[in-house]
Amino acid sequence: MKQNRKLLHKVRFTAFVASSVDGRISLSTHTRPDWTSREDWQFLQESLGSYDAVVVGRNTFRAAEKRLRKRNTYVFSRTVAKTKQEGLVTFVNPARVNLATLLSTHKRIAVLGGSSVYQFMLSKKMLNELYITIEPLVFGRGIPMFSGGSKNHTLALRSVRRLNKKGTLLLRYEIQP
Amino acid sequence: MKQNRKLLHKVRFTAFVASSVDGRISLSTHTRPDWTSREDWQFLQESLGSYDAVVVGRNTFRAAEKRLRKRNTYVFSRTVAKTKQEGLVTFVNPARVNLATLLSTHKRIAVLGGSSVYQFMLSKKMLNELYITIEPLVFGRGIPMFSGGSKNHTLALRSVRRLNKKGTLLLRYEIQP
Repeated sequence: MKQNRKLLHKVRFTAFVASSVDGRISLSTHTRPDWTSREDWQFLQESLGSYDAVVVGRNTFRAAEKRLRKRNTYVFSRTVAKTKQEGLVTFVNPARVNLATLLSTHKRIAVLGGSSVYQFMLSKKMLNELYITIEPLVFGRGIPMFSGGSKNHTLALRSVRRLNKKGTLLLRYEIQP
Repeated sequence: MKQNRKLLHKVRFTAFVASSVDGRISLSTHTRPDWTSREDWQFLQESLGSYDAVVVGRNTFRAAEKRLRKRNTYVFSRTVAKTKQEGLVTFVNPARVNLATLLSTHKRIAVLGGSSVYQFMLSKKMLNELYITIEPLVFGRGIPMFSGGSKNHTLALRSVRRLNKKGTLLLRYEIQP
């Protein structure tokens, strides 16, 4: 663990989350949300320009496969027996490899979800920063932002930005080590 | 329905919600959250001074019974067969009474949760305004802010306030009719 932290010392992990007011990131697992604002999409695309790798879960990968194949993408999947490379995309079972070694070749890694990937990275201390876009919607159902956690994590609010007239908010949190 | 809306025309419903960043309002059903900030507590107590009634679910009532017995409180419960009055407190099964008639005697009603009460009031169009305090915490488990919904609701962001140094945020939304 100590060795892993040393390996990842220079890697910065940032999660990007788009959420409803009630903390839901999706209404169904298999499609990309169609309720996020243009401003959120622009922010994400511009931001990704400064990241040299992306981490996603299998469903998130499938929902945006075409775009993600153009990036260094790590697809987390529990059903992958052996790490598999396809062009820029690496399919990996995060429980079966040394992630620190695998990811330490990068400088800035964007974590794009879904909720079990966000939770996994948070609980493994591989998350330094969290951007949350809150769209002014209430769903009352759907996939929660984080799930399967067993302890509380404390964040520090760094900035608040209003992205548009209807009131999409962009929050930036630093995750306390 | 139309008649109900007329009855409630002059009643203003405001929900007060304290939440983690990931949209959880509680880690367990039966205790009052101990993770909310002093500033949120002060805001709530000061606000309640201008409301002449409170709506809560059974668990929320139990967790704050002593304080709530001093207010005009409506406790929603599916297990109440017949509306029952105890001092200032009315126990009522919201599915079995005409809520509009019951609540129209008040001017400003504070809805204090839990999630099924928030959801119920939202879906019955008995929610005009929503204050959400976001504490800088991630739980990854627990009770979501709204649950059991079947459609999306659009809000309009009215204000954002930072309540303290650690970054507790207070958001005010207007619910679109």
